[in-house]
Amino acid sequence: MAKQKISAVPSIRRLPSYLHIIRQAKDEGNEYISGTVIAQELHLEPIQVRKDLAITGIVGKPKKGYPVIALMAAIEHFLGWDEMQQAVLIGAGNLGTALTGYQEFQYHGLNICAAFDQDPAKVGKTIHGVRVFSLETMDVQIRNLGAKIAILTVPSAFANEVTEKLVAAGIKAIWNFTNVKLNVPDDVLVQKEDLTSGYAMLCVMMNMAKHANV
Amino acid sequence: MAKQKISAVPSIRRLPSYLHIIRQAKDEGNEYISGTVIAQELHLEPIQVRKDLAITGIVGKPKKGYPVIALMAAIEHFLGWDEMQQAVLIGAGNLGTALTGYQEFQYHGLNICAAFDQDPAKVGKTIHGVRVFSLETMDVQIRNLGAKIAILTVPSAFANEVTEKLVAAGIKAIWNFTNVKLNVPDDVLVQKEDLTSGYAMLCVMMNMAKHANV
Repeated sequence: MAKQKISAVPSIRRLPSYLHIIRQAKDEGNEYISGTVIAQELHLEPIQVRKDLAITGIVGKPKKGYPVIALMAAIEHFLGWDEMQQAVLIGAGNLGTALTGYQEFQYHGLNICAAFDQDPAKVGKTIHGVRVFSLETMDVQIRNLGAKIAILTVPSAFANEVTEKLVAAGIKAIWNFTNVKLNVPDDVLVQKEDLTSGYAMLCVMMNMAKHANV
Repeated sequence: MAKQKISAVPSIRRLPSYLHIIRQAKDEGNEYISGTVIAQELHLEPIQVRKDLAITGIVGKPKKGYPVIALMAAIEHFLGWDEMQQAVLIGAGNLGTALTGYQEFQYHGLNICAAFDQDPAKVGKTIHGVRVFSLETMDVQIRNLGAKIAILTVPSAFANEVTEKLVAAGIKAIWNFTNVKLNVPDDVLVQKEDLTSGYAMLCVMMNMAKHANV
């Protein structure tokens, strides 16, 4: 399978934040939510929100907005979050530990079922309920668990060495928090996370504000 | 100052990854780098890379590409990363600790000069060389340090209570890792980081691959 281009990347990236707001509306007992309300919460234009939500196939009702339960289901189905995915965490450092404790994941069908680290002091311990195993047993355990997703938070120097083993063990999708370009075959997907992207946005906003005030 | 809309958000978000690749090219002794090479590294179209780089004001030379040093300078200047920014970290948990240890920040003019936490066991310690102080002293210390940026990694339940104090202490930009919408005056900027956005992208790619293989 050749890698496909995904259109609507910014729309997809916004869906989780919509889901968060819609879930809050549901918890507050609302049956409907309007695109305008979602837009206000996120400082977006209503037309943008409606366009983004349209990619999930749902259509709002005039004056009432979107039915909350159907809207959540549509987004979750579009993202595949209505099915539980088994993932393994590679690298049980601070970032990895933070990710296992990230409460939002429970809503997203993501179950981190095991963690792996090369530090003997971490092996055998649990982080937020997730057991840490030795990197040496990774191969066998990933096969046994049937996990297809790996969350990669190892030091960058080890990223490709570990990735080679992940691919051999049957991992098909890697959420890459290292700053290394991973060498993977065409049927393995990689989503690279760059924590500095958000900081770039903040800096550009600060620059704009500075010039607006001059 | 009213909040301005930023066009070219995806372009800005990609600039840090360009910078990373360009820096590698420089370290390898290259004088020029082409948009095509950058595009290949990041699985993007060359035309997209050239458009993104154009927002920094730089123009490439036919056949040679971009002069590496001038290109880095243009991106860094556009992002304001050529000036050192003093930031404070609020919440010295796993995510906060991971951020203080994130080596890329040193290239981005971001200096985390102090961390604050309410846990007495953390106060007085250092994380990746950054001293942790009591949340109670936050107000005075932020003023003394002259920090204008706060990185917020506290539990969501405390997000707005802490934000109120940050604003009172003179913070003008908040990098928000909580999933809470912060209540801030118009002259305070907020960049909300949603770690689940990247996971959403990975899931949509997995869905597409599944359907492509059926």
